[in-house]
Amino acid sequence: MAEKGGLADLKIVEYAQFITGPFCTKLMADLGAEVIKIEEPRMGDISRRREPFLNNAPHPEQSGLFLYLNTNKLGMTLNLKSAKGVQLFKELIKDADILVETLPPGHMAERGLDYETLREVNPGLIMTSITPFGQTGPYRDYKGCDLISSNMGGLSYVTPPRISDPTQEPPLKGGGRQTDFMAGTIGALFTMGAVFSRKLNGMGQHIDLSEFEATATAAARDISLFVYGYEQPNRSELGMHSTTTHLQCKDGFLQFYVLGTQPWQAFLNVIGNPEWGENDEFQDHPARVKNWDALKPLIEEWTKERTKEDVFHLLQQNRVAVSPVNTIEAVVNSPQLAEREFFVNIDHPLTGLLTYPGAPIKFSEPVWQIRQPAPQLGEHNEEIICRRLGYSREDLVRMRGTGII
Amino acid sequence: MAEKGGLADLKIVEYAQFITGPFCTKLMADLGAEVIKIEEPRMGDISRRREPFLNNAPHPEQSGLFLYLNTNKLGMTLNLKSAKGVQLFKELIKDADILVETLPPGHMAERGLDYETLREVNPGLIMTSITPFGQTGPYRDYKGCDLISSNMGGLSYVTPPRISDPTQEPPLKGGGRQTDFMAGTIGALFTMGAVFSRKLNGMGQHIDLSEFEATATAAARDISLFVYGYEQPNRSELGMHSTTTHLQCKDGFLQFYVLGTQPWQAFLNVIGNPEWGENDEFQDHPARVKNWDALKPLIEEWTKERTKEDVFHLLQQNRVAVSPVNTIEAVVNSPQLAEREFFVNIDHPLTGLLTYPGAPIKFSEPVWQIRQPAPQLGEHNEEIICRRLGYSREDLVRMRGTGII
Repeated sequence: MAEKGGLADLKIVEYAQFITGPFCTKLMADLGAEVIKIEEPRMGDISRRREPFLNNAPHPEQSGLFLYLNTNKLGMTLNLKSAKGVQLFKELIKDADILVETLPPGHMAERGLDYETLREVNPGLIMTSITPFGQTGPYRDYKGCDLISSNMGGLSYVTPPRISDPTQEPPLKGGGRQTDFMAGTIGALFTMGAVFSRKLNGMGQHIDLSEFEATATAAARDISLFVYGYEQPNRSELGMHSTTTHLQCKDGFLQFYVLGTQPWQAFLNVIGNPEWGENDEFQDHPARVKNWDALKPLIEEWTKERTKEDVFHLLQQNRVAVSPVNTIEAVVNSPQLAEREFFVNIDHPLTGLLTYPGAPIKFSEPVWQIRQPAPQLGEHNEEIICRRLGYSREDLVRMRGTGII
Repeated sequence: MAEKGGLADLKIVEYAQFITGPFCTKLMADLGAEVIKIEEPRMGDISRRREPFLNNAPHPEQSGLFLYLNTNKLGMTLNLKSAKGVQLFKELIKDADILVETLPPGHMAERGLDYETLREVNPGLIMTSITPFGQTGPYRDYKGCDLISSNMGGLSYVTPPRISDPTQEPPLKGGGRQTDFMAGTIGALFTMGAVFSRKLNGMGQHIDLSEFEATATAAARDISLFVYGYEQPNRSELGMHSTTTHLQCKDGFLQFYVLGTQPWQAFLNVIGNPEWGENDEFQDHPARVKNWDALKPLIEEWTKERTKEDVFHLLQQNRVAVSPVNTIEAVVNSPQLAEREFFVNIDHPLTGLLTYPGAPIKFSEPVWQIRQPAPQLGEHNEEIICRRLGYSREDLVRMRGTGII
């Protein structure tokens, strides 16, 4: 394994924006692949215009989201609506293993850069297109995002389980942008699968990834209810069957669920076997589920006197699975993540040292590495256009003047 | 590309339960890898005991969740608490590329099957361990699951955004088991990264995946708020800044968000430019966010007369990004997924034909394929023990009699 990581042999061209595509290529870049990120001249990736910014002042080189998603990439600007830009793009594709793009279906073809054309330039090319609904089907031209994938993919419907009136209480979406990150991860995995295929037959291919479908894959547990023709429970029925709940602690909420026999005994031991623990109404799991409204305040008398962190450790050390509801700040300051050295510090010429999530994995051999910060807009134009593609510095100046880069 | 798919050269041994590990190996099996799934004799994977079941009757061969997660695998039983079982396991490892396991930290070592020992059996082995908190750190022995990862990883805290009293209203977790599926997908991706590394240096390695960390990676958007030292907003502040909302339609909810200039004009055109569209209080995006409580009922007068599906198509065809809140049933019956042939039908000797999510990706060349249903408990014992490891049928009968398989 080279110092550069396991994918050091792979050359990737990225023409993608926001989260899905850039996260897909970041995963491969952090594993050692070379990624050339192509952005529109002047505008760049839309995530450059998303908060947070240093001192709350919008600046295209200082979006925390952009800086996280684009580590380890070379940055180049290129106007793909110009003939010269298209020509340069094809020169890059000639030498690439993988193209990851996130344009709406048909937009690459409008630029003369559809898979059929690019395959003639490079028969081994793996082109990965990530879109909300895929390249085909009645929704192909519809707009989408994490919010829409969550709602369309069935994940919002089952959030939250505990409500009383499903006709009046709207469903929710899980926090963060989970479907975007999931789609990016799936994209990286299947792209690498295609690289393996190519080793067997020398052929590239077009991968058409739908975020809606990636989301439905993660909803498989709920979908599996339907394979036997179960009727759709409504959301309050889903709630009634739920045994997950929260307890109030001195300083916030603890995630709890109604306990089965073994953890219930362990739990009673921890809280000192109060007399209500002998109550017939709480004797077995079905009884505790049924009488939860009476049981909960009794337990909360104990939890409300303690911090969620104290309760978490006390119960977990006795094999009762609970967790504090962490704020993001608590995540960043987690002693577990600190000991595992999860977060990485990345220096950047404009913002200075910043802290970001690192690999969710520890390797026994060094495979994963942050080598460099996200590129400034067009930072590596000269490196790529002159040194790699062989154009002169005069050409470069001309391209800059005519808005091609 | 062989008929068997891109990963046909890879041999994987799985000793894992429930979602994370089995989904990790399913992804690779569906891409062509051979997966030998090892289960405890008699008990098997705990997901065999999870609903849904055919006719609601629990049966270890008929859990819809198990059947989905274990397609394309060979199934073998083995008692790893017996010396003979451990010996057979090592014989399998000798010939394997990858081991995926999900035991609590230390439990493989208790069986004499830690990475250091297995590396002596097979120096090229890639061992991927998936646990709630990783193999090290103060929480390594704590229990975890999707619910706990979501709460610990910061995703629950930011769900939902719109609440009025964060001290009284508990946070929620997104629907489904997203962090389990994410951890499995990340596991497959990084395992394949290690396979690439091995091609460069011939060495295997131990991959230590923490579901907590995989979740924190997907929470990166929120974490990026902190890299500049922003103060943690409380949940009602998060809600105030949220522009996402729901509208009531005739038959359920529509996901909507407060619109910017261009989609707002498109939206007004669609609904026939009502006079309140001219109202100064709704003239620009900040005004619409501020006066949303007054604006929402005006819009709902229009949406309540229409179905969510009709509103979805009408608005999307005019470039306004909205979505119906799909029930799982609606996902299964989606015309988009039908046209893309997303769902696959898998025949099984006990349950008959079942429908499951397929690949979230269309390949231009056939790389992904469901070749066979999930194995029955120990279904391939003879195939593996006699035909591959070379034991006799008498040995097999003896192993069965002594509870080794």
